[in-house]
Amino acid sequence: MNEFFNPKTVAVIGVSSSPDNLACNILANLIEFNFKGTVYEVGIRGGVCFGRKIYRSVTNISDHIDLAVILTPARTISGILRDCGKKGIKHVIIESAGFGEYGQEGQKLDKELLDIAKKYGIKFIGPNCIGAMNLHNGLALSFTAFKNVFRKGSVSIVTQSGGVGISYLNLLSSENIGLGKFASIGNKLNINENDILEYLIHDPETEIICLYLESISDGRRLMDIALRSSKPILLHKANIGREAMDIAQSHTASLSSDDAVVSAALKQAGIARFKDPETMLNYLKILPLAKVRGNQLAIISRSGGHAVIAADACGEAGFTLSEFDKSFIKEIEKHFRANVIRLTNPLDLGDLFDYKVYSKIIKRTIAQKNVHGVVFLHTYISSTEGELSRKLFAELEKISFKYKKPIAICVATDEEELYKLRQELSRPVFVSPSGAIHALALSRDFHHGRKRGRVVAHKYQVNKKAVRSVINACKTKGINPSIKESMDILEDYGIKVIQGSFVKTEKEAILVAKKIGYPVVMKVVCPSAIHKTEIGGVKLDIKDQGELVKNFQKMQFVMKKSFPKSGNRGVLIQPMMKDGVELIIGAKRDPNFGPTIMVGLGGIFVEVFKDTSLRIIPFSDDELNSMFPELKGYQILAGTRGQKGYDLNAAKNTVKRLCMLVTDFPEISEIDLNPFKILPKKGAGFCLDARIIL
Amino acid sequence: MNEFFNPKTVAVIGVSSSPDNLACNILANLIEFNFKGTVYEVGIRGGVCFGRKIYRSVTNISDHIDLAVILTPARTISGILRDCGKKGIKHVIIESAGFGEYGQEGQKLDKELLDIAKKYGIKFIGPNCIGAMNLHNGLALSFTAFKNVFRKGSVSIVTQSGGVGISYLNLLSSENIGLGKFASIGNKLNINENDILEYLIHDPETEIICLYLESISDGRRLMDIALRSSKPILLHKANIGREAMDIAQSHTASLSSDDAVVSAALKQAGIARFKDPETMLNYLKILPLAKVRGNQLAIISRSGGHAVIAADACGEAGFTLSEFDKSFIKEIEKHFRANVIRLTNPLDLGDLFDYKVYSKIIKRTIAQKNVHGVVFLHTYISSTEGELSRKLFAELEKISFKYKKPIAICVATDEEELYKLRQELSRPVFVSPSGAIHALALSRDFHHGRKRGRVVAHKYQVNKKAVRSVINACKTKGINPSIKESMDILEDYGIKVIQGSFVKTEKEAILVAKKIGYPVVMKVVCPSAIHKTEIGGVKLDIKDQGELVKNFQKMQFVMKKSFPKSGNRGVLIQPMMKDGVELIIGAKRDPNFGPTIMVGLGGIFVEVFKDTSLRIIPFSDDELNSMFPELKGYQILAGTRGQKGYDLNAAKNTVKRLCMLVTDFPEISEIDLNPFKILPKKGAGFCLDARIIL
Repeated sequence: MNEFFNPKTVAVIGVSSSPDNLACNILANLIEFNFKGTVYEVGIRGGVCFGRKIYRSVTNISDHIDLAVILTPARTISGILRDCGKKGIKHVIIESAGFGEYGQEGQKLDKELLDIAKKYGIKFIGPNCIGAMNLHNGLALSFTAFKNVFRKGSVSIVTQSGGVGISYLNLLSSENIGLGKFASIGNKLNINENDILEYLIHDPETEIICLYLESISDGRRLMDIALRSSKPILLHKANIGREAMDIAQSHTASLSSDDAVVSAALKQAGIARFKDPETMLNYLKILPLAKVRGNQLAIISRSGGHAVIAADACGEAGFTLSEFDKSFIKEIEKHFRANVIRLTNPLDLGDLFDYKVYSKIIKRTIAQKNVHGVVFLHTYISSTEGELSRKLFAELEKISFKYKKPIAICVATDEEELYKLRQELSRPVFVSPSGAIHALALSRDFHHGRKRGRVVAHKYQVNKKAVRSVINACKTKGINPSIKESMDILEDYGIKVIQGSFVKTEKEAILVAKKIGYPVVMKVVCPSAIHKTEIGGVKLDIKDQGELVKNFQKMQFVMKKSFPKSGNRGVLIQPMMKDGVELIIGAKRDPNFGPTIMVGLGGIFVEVFKDTSLRIIPFSDDELNSMFPELKGYQILAGTRGQKGYDLNAAKNTVKRLCMLVTDFPEISEIDLNPFKILPKKGAGFCLDARIIL
Repeated sequence: MNEFFNPKTVAVIGVSSSPDNLACNILANLIEFNFKGTVYEVGIRGGVCFGRKIYRSVTNISDHIDLAVILTPARTISGILRDCGKKGIKHVIIESAGFGEYGQEGQKLDKELLDIAKKYGIKFIGPNCIGAMNLHNGLALSFTAFKNVFRKGSVSIVTQSGGVGISYLNLLSSENIGLGKFASIGNKLNINENDILEYLIHDPETEIICLYLESISDGRRLMDIALRSSKPILLHKANIGREAMDIAQSHTASLSSDDAVVSAALKQAGIARFKDPETMLNYLKILPLAKVRGNQLAIISRSGGHAVIAADACGEAGFTLSEFDKSFIKEIEKHFRANVIRLTNPLDLGDLFDYKVYSKIIKRTIAQKNVHGVVFLHTYISSTEGELSRKLFAELEKISFKYKKPIAICVATDEEELYKLRQELSRPVFVSPSGAIHALALSRDFHHGRKRGRVVAHKYQVNKKAVRSVINACKTKGINPSIKESMDILEDYGIKVIQGSFVKTEKEAILVAKKIGYPVVMKVVCPSAIHKTEIGGVKLDIKDQGELVKNFQKMQFVMKKSFPKSGNRGVLIQPMMKDGVELIIGAKRDPNFGPTIMVGLGGIFVEVFKDTSLRIIPFSDDELNSMFPELKGYQILAGTRGQKGYDLNAAKNTVKRLCMLVTDFPEISEIDLNPFKILPKKGAGFCLDARIIL
């Protein structure tokens, strides 16, 4: 992979001496960025460009070529790639468009490229991209001509869209944030984001990685790489429109949309998702600062208004404001004119205009144990205070370094001064107080998230054999397990269920109900009745025999009407459980991230409020324990308005066993335990209804 | 008020020839901005500044003074203000700090100022502010020295914080958005935001108004002005921290926090609330464009990635993408190379590099009936395409003007080119696709909101006299109405209630329950039992006499324990209503916005999910009709999973009558109808429990 970013010899293929030749821009970029290696020009018509000979084919070059960049019409690429193979070139970037993204013909070309690459052991980036960059050696392969306005640095970018990549480059340049490597991966036909990521997390010149993706090539691998990365990874995952969500047809699917899975997975892997470039920039500004190792901030401001805005943002971002030591207040009191400033946090510097005192106050503040970071809000007029301010900022950087705590500097000043700050300071400043504080929250969460426990693949003593035989039988018949079979499967995996009794006739129903004791519950047992409730297939709280008989007949009618072909498969009678609270626990196989698990409060909480918590299997115990508390309705489980809370251990235990079940049986595409009832009693909880889809 | 912005003569008080004299900055600003009027300098020590004589007092000036600006120590202001009064100056800006914001002594000064102002008929802005500006006549009264880097325009700013005001000025200047007037209102001791707003909505030089407030002086008046304004008003209301929310102690209060009332009120008044300066800037860029008169956009992009990001944002902002006419597609097809672009919306311009065709395509798109706005996403390299692009943008402005539909131009280019665009274009461009689309949504909602119906103060035939007598009796005793009295009051206002029977003894309870028929409900009747549920004061679904007796005794015990002093006031027995869905309908008097009304789904939906909808009374029928649909749980009311929906007419009717009740009786500080039950049956609904707090 290193050859893509650090080639010693590069062949640019597609060059001609025509004035509108795009490949010439690649050459121009290599000159503009002062590329350290050797460049060869290749173009079928030969000639000269930038004073260098254009070879008619790579095979005519005698030197070894580390990396070839191709920008010729789509239909010519196969031949050129084959030439590259023959020449022994192992790394290629194909920038041309017109492949799989545009119809069937392009897809045929895709296959050809992959076959040739396989044959010759070529790895290639693209097609349909703007290539790679490496600021550290002057590699710059985009077919749009850039000016080298970039600061060398350690932020690396991987982007699926060339256009978005260019925006990111512009943003970094305008904030003068240092750029390391850049890769535009286009159609990801051969090399994908994970291949590049794997390289970048080990690249000593990269400290932060920014991604723009419209599709995730392999979610599991992405998570795996991110979990191994000690470097922050920021991702803009776009393409979340409805179209993508319409795949799902059954219950759980429509609840946990693809994008919810993506969000859960990214969070679980410690990848920071962002949606707008401002957020990305704020993250890029905060992450190189010292870590935020706690939840308490100090705000020091020259403007009361900005202090208020920052305090609001602290509330939103879950920060509290540190209390200042009495000794500290006494120490700084003398600097203020009497009775004009309340010395609290946020600290309004009011009419204090002494830059030396500012620095002193900030130093004393950051030294406080209960301060985990300082936000300095500095409103100033550049003409009179510009120099003083820039000196102060440099001083603050030293203080921050000494105390190993971040100082986020947020300025309100004119455009010209901002430009100067970007050029002169080694650390960029913020312009939005709330942006700075939300970025500090990211830093806090990122570094906190790194501490989360070991991922556990749960192993229990279970009856795998029994489950295998039920599933095989269903597979043979091409049907899904019935409710009874589903409940059996759960029991085989040690999950408590209330089975009830399966009856086929009215008489049986009467006998069973009497035995269980009224009130009882009646449910249709029919594999194709995916949503029993809608068709009237569930009747709760049946109080006596009269009601029982009436409902039995009704259900027979319903089943005949709804499923004329499946025959009478009877009903299930269970005891009515009034107490407890209903949960939904479900597992689903995501096409990209594999098995996932979801918990939520039963009924409308999931359906109407979409209040669910999702994880990708497997996960750590810390993740498991965080699932229920992140529900909006958690208060109901924890106890509200004088009501006792519920014991979640049975539910958590069930989640773990369900994880094992879906891991053991890849045939299971979906399981819903709905409802899973839990009680205030310790450890009590059982599944009342289940549905498994293969 | 006009004298604050268009004075012919200004006296600046507090000038001295000392080098660190801050009032000199005011003079410097007036020179820098080329103020058109006459300036007089005043300072107790006399002397000369900027070559002009410093008068020792305003009374020494022979000319009439329209506006005086004072920047002297707090303790000197009273005397100076008195001098202003004697001199006949009616308009004063006090910039000095050290008043009510800092302790008791300052509050004493406040009173003095107000007394003097009253005596002499003076109106003053401040204290604790940075004064006023008017770009159109060069008035610039800030005590911090500005460079005149501002474009003259029609955005006016009112800010409570000087520092935030300066940030806004910097932002406008850096985007080259035209500024009209500026007022920093500081402590708002005399003139407040509403006084300035009232002026600005009639000011021909102002088209958009931006506010920054930490407190709202008179919420009702603010709403009234906004509803009369044809100009968009944007507001950053900060200071939403917990401290402010702790005022509330009773149920409804803790649910609809002050900030929720503020948000509801602003929305109702058509004021756009924003929280960060980027949003403000995007709004300021979109509002001068043609109105967004519908919900369908077309996205035309040079980069596929930006098109995807824009499409995502359309989904978030509630826009749909217009379908392109077949004739249109046929027309543009010829410009594209075959098989390389799918001609859909979003339209990826792909390898089409012809600026004339761009303009043609956009013109043809905007002409389509089902397109209400166009977003043009333009990624370009300034060195080769800068001039072409700027020419195209100017062309697009004309097209937008012709078709009376907005074209939001969003660019991805380098910093230098952005600077040029800001200088050269009369309309600013966007840099964030999602920012542009959310701003278009604001424009859509603002212009749509303007159409909302007439505010109605509902009038019904009610028994006001009966309510007056109950309330008077309660007031005399210093207690709140009991549950029975509360229910009576509601009935007197034509709200359906299920009263039940009030019983004092076990025997009575047995008799009543038999008469009503089991199951029944039992509730304690005790004025101080604010939260009956917590103390066990509500028992639902009592099935037989045994349960009844047991619970009666339990409640006697509970009441004795919880309210030893209030004596046995018996229990209420009501029929148990199993069907229907429970709502909460509540009214509450906000200290600032006056009577408000809140609806939500009963129980945990309000308590745990905080799912409420709020309005300030009075409001239009359109507003009333929008209340329930804006609940997150609305689907429950509208019907879900095959269940029928509920009829909301009874609830709406109750809302209207409740509005009348709290308007008629200002003594009522809170009413809670909890639960108010509604049924699928048409028009059915009744209150089962109520609480009124005076």
